Parts: sequence; structure tokens; C-alpha cells
Amino acid sequence: MSRKSAHKAIDLAAPVVVLVNPQLGENIGTTARAMANFGLSALRLVDPRDGWPNERARKAASGADWIIDNAEVFDRLQDALADLHHVYATTARPRGMTKRVIAPVEAGADMRARVGRGQRLGLLFGRERWGLNNDEVALADVIITAPVNPRFASLNIAQAVLLVAYEWYRQGDAADKLGMATDQLEALEAGLQMPGSRPATKAELHGLFAHLESALDAADYFKSPDMRPTIVRNLRNAISRAELTEQEVRTWRGVIRALTGIRERHERDGGERGGD
Amino acid sequence: MSRKSAHKAIDLAAPVVVLVNPQLGENIGTTARAMANFGLSALRLVDPRDGWPNERARKAASGADWIIDNAEVFDRLQDALADLHHVYATTARPRGMTKRVIAPVEAGADMRARVGRGQRLGLLFGRERWGLNNDEVALADVIITAPVNPRFASLNIAQAVLLVAYEWYRQGDAADKLGMATDQLEALEAGLQMPGSRPATKAELHGLFAHLESALDAADYFKSPDMRPTIVRNLRNAISRAELTEQEVRTWRGVIRALTGIRERHERDGGERGGD
Repeated sequence: MSRKSAHKAIDLAAPVVVLVNPQLGENIGTTARAMANFGLSALRLVDPRDGWPNERARKAASGADWIIDNAEVFDRLQDALADLHHVYATTARPRGMTKRVIAPVEAGADMRARVGRGQRLGLLFGRERWGLNNDEVALADVIITAPVNPRFASLNIAQAVLLVAYEWYRQGDAADKLGMATDQLEALEAGLQMPGSRPATKAELHGLFAHLESALDAADYFKSPDMRPTIVRNLRNAISRAELTEQEVRTWRGVIRALTGIRERHERDGGERGGD
Repeated sequence: MSRKSAHKAIDLAAPVVVLVNPQLGENIGTTARAMANFGLSALRLVDPRDGWPNERARKAASGADWIIDNAEVFDRLQDALADLHHVYATTARPRGMTKRVIAPVEAGADMRARVGRGQRLGLLFGRERWGLNNDEVALADVIITAPVNPRFASLNIAQAVLLVAYEWYRQGDAADKLGMATDQLEALEAGLQMPGSRPATKAELHGLFAHLESALDAADYFKSPDMRPTIVRNLRNAISRAELTEQEVRTWRGVIRALTGIRERHERDGGERGGD
């Protein structure tokens, strides 16, 4: 509990990120930022090359200070892993080891299941230049390898952290997602953003159809009576696909009135006109 | 074919990444690197702040030079989208627009299905500081919003590109990796039935927008200049959602001509008129 800051708590249940021998402070900072984006907060550093604390790390964290402030430093990887139950090592390539290799998407599901059973998890990331050595990988239970373009496979360390953290966060259950802004959640769930309006009823939509079609009749749009049913069906299909709101139906009826306005005025010699 | 380099081809079928008004060359470079990691190669820049080419971009690309070398620069976003059929805008927050919002995982499946049907796709990313404005979002068909910790939601531009590109790449072969219900997948893959026609390009769609808006201007539809941008955006959003085919765009332009026909005839004293 001593590791909590005022309002950005260190989540002791979420996986711990362990960076082995990180070389550039910038990369520690961008790692912290990626963790913050996806709900991870416990960071451990094993023998960081430039010592600790590191001002470059803080700057690159872009405000994820609670992660930087609470980072723990260890001399040896074994110590950094001591209190964890299950450890994932991320590597770019297969290592010729008899160890299970999974993709980030599977790791996300596996992490959620294990945390649900009360396990403490670690995510191991290697040095910028050459990753983890085989002895370090051997300390892990599972290898995570992201599916990457084999012709350009080098993932920056913060990007590797980002992908695994993303899968962790994305696959959280509803309770975890409560942390998501309500409007964001609702928009995702609704699929469509409909501010201040509701979907049009079919009656309203049919009113729009009828309005348009009678305007087209009046404008002599349908060249032949034979063609009219097909063309009408095509117009209705296109309109239906837009999934208009009630407000939008009214707007489009206003558009039709406006477009036909001058004709009507002309024909009636001074009828009403205008948009909504 | 002139856009191919010796051994790293520009993949003309994969989605195009469009950066609107990027400010830092470094971010263009790290975006190129993220694209290369996940099999994207076509990069378009709209009005990059520091001009182009940009040596900082090349350096930050860490070897993804074929993407930097083949990047195309445009003055206007509309021109950058002209030849595309379907465009995704990435935003951090809901925009109060009536537009479908999906997560990266769904975008990955949707992109694969559309590319399978021969569509050219665009992925729109905004400025570092404040993203895309509403008029820019209105030019897209769908919004992609990543599920991010609401207390720390700011994703670096290259990280946003990385997540979407990751979902594109990951979902490349086996759909069953999705964990998606089969009927859901089939529905995605079937998409819209477009017999005998192809999806409209953005240039064709923008032609329809311009036609409608100038007709509405002529009809004095916009009551005040203040309201015009919002109303135009709403009309464009509704039309975009319909995902019109090229044939349908021609039909709707015929509808506009028909509805305004007598005015045109009246004003031009005998101009052409009629539906398509």
C-alpha cells in the first residue's frame, strides 16, 4: 500500500513489467507511457545501464509519473522475479528451447485467467540491442512472440510492451472496463454514435421514401413506368443502409423541400419553400 | 509499379496510412517503422508541417526506408483520399457524430474482408497535439477508437498506427484466431451485396457532396452561414454511411438534377435536365 500515489494507484493484481538491462532512459519512459495506456503500473528494472532515477525516462513518460516514481530496481533478474507466480518472456524469434510459444492475443487471455486465480504475473522484456539471453528466457514459463512481418521484425521495446499490454487490457472483463469513460463504452456498444437523437422508426423512414418519390414523380424523373419500381428500390436500399436517425430524416426532408422549392414556387407562382 | 523498390515492394492491396498535418519528422519515421512491422507500406502525408523530404523521419524509421522513399505528399486531405473506397478515422474520443465506432480488433476483420472484395482502404491519423478535426472525421466512413485506460488515454501517433496495423496483420490468415462467431464473420465477409457495380471512390463521393451542397446553396437552404459547416457535416456523414456504389452516386446526382431541374431550366432558359 505504500506504493500508492494519491490518485494513480499501482495495481498490484495486474502483471508486472520487468525490463532487463535497459539501455536508454527514453525507452524506459515510453514503456511507462505504454503501460499507463493499458492499465499496467508496476515496473521493475534490472540493472539499468544509466542508473536510476533517470530524468530522460521521466520526460519520455509524458506524464505517467506514478509508474516512474514507483519503479523498483534490482541487480539480478532472479530477484526481480522472486515473488511472481508465472512469467512470460517476450522474444522476437524462436529460441530453440522447449518452451511454449504464444502470441500476444493468447497471452492476454492467459494473463486474465491466471490473475483471476490470484496469480502474480511478470512480463519480461530484453535489451534494446539484442533482447534476452537464453539463461534469462529460461527463467520464464512461456515465450510471447508477436506475429510480425519477417522482413522487418524489429519491434521497439515500448512497442512490444504496448502490444502485450493492449491484449491484457482489451481482454479484461466488464468490471475492468468500467474504468472506461462511459460515453466511450456506450459508443462502442451501440456501434453508432447518435448524439441527442434516436434511430428513425420505419414509419419515419417510409415517410422520407414517399416524400422523395413523389418529388421525383413531380419532376418527371422516371423515364418509363417500367423502370420506376427498380429505381425506387435502389434509392430505398441506399437510404436504408445509412441507418438514419429521426433527426436526420427531418433534415433530409428539408433538403428535398429546398431542392424542389424553386420549382414549386415557379409552378405555384409563389408557394412555400425552405429547409428545416 | 514505379512505386516498387528493389526487394521491398509497396503493397498496393494493403490499407494506406494517411497522416494529416504531422508535426514532427520523428513521428513520421516511427509511424513508418510501425507500418513495416505489420505489413503496411503505402504512406500519404497531408501538408506535413516541416515539409518533405524530412531527414528526421528517415532516421526515426530505423530502416523502413522504402516507406519513407515512397511516401506521397498532398496539400488537401480530399485529394489524399480520392482513389480510396473506404476510410477509417482513428480518434481518441467520441465525436458526437452519427458514425459507426469500432475497436481495432473489429477494424482488422473489416479491413481483411474489404480488401478481399478488392476495396482500397485508408487509415486516417490526426495531428500529434489535437488529432483530426470534425470536418476531417466526416470524410471517413467509420471511426476506430482503441479501448484505452481513460485516466491515461493519450496514444502516441506511431502507437496508434501500431495497434491498427497489428490487428490488420494478425488477422491475415486464420479467421478463427479472432474468436469471432462464424455467423458474425460470414456477415462481415458478405458485407454489402453490390451486384454489377463497384464501391464509389472518394473522389466520386466528394463530387456528390459538392453537387448537393452547391444545389443547396443555390436553393438558399442554409439559413445562416454559421450553421452551414455543421449541417454539411451531418449530410456528408449520412451519405457516407450508405457506402454508395459508383452507379448509385450517378443515380443520386441524377436525383439532385431532377429535383432542381425546373430551377435549372428556368435559370438557364433551357438547360439539360433529368435523371440518370
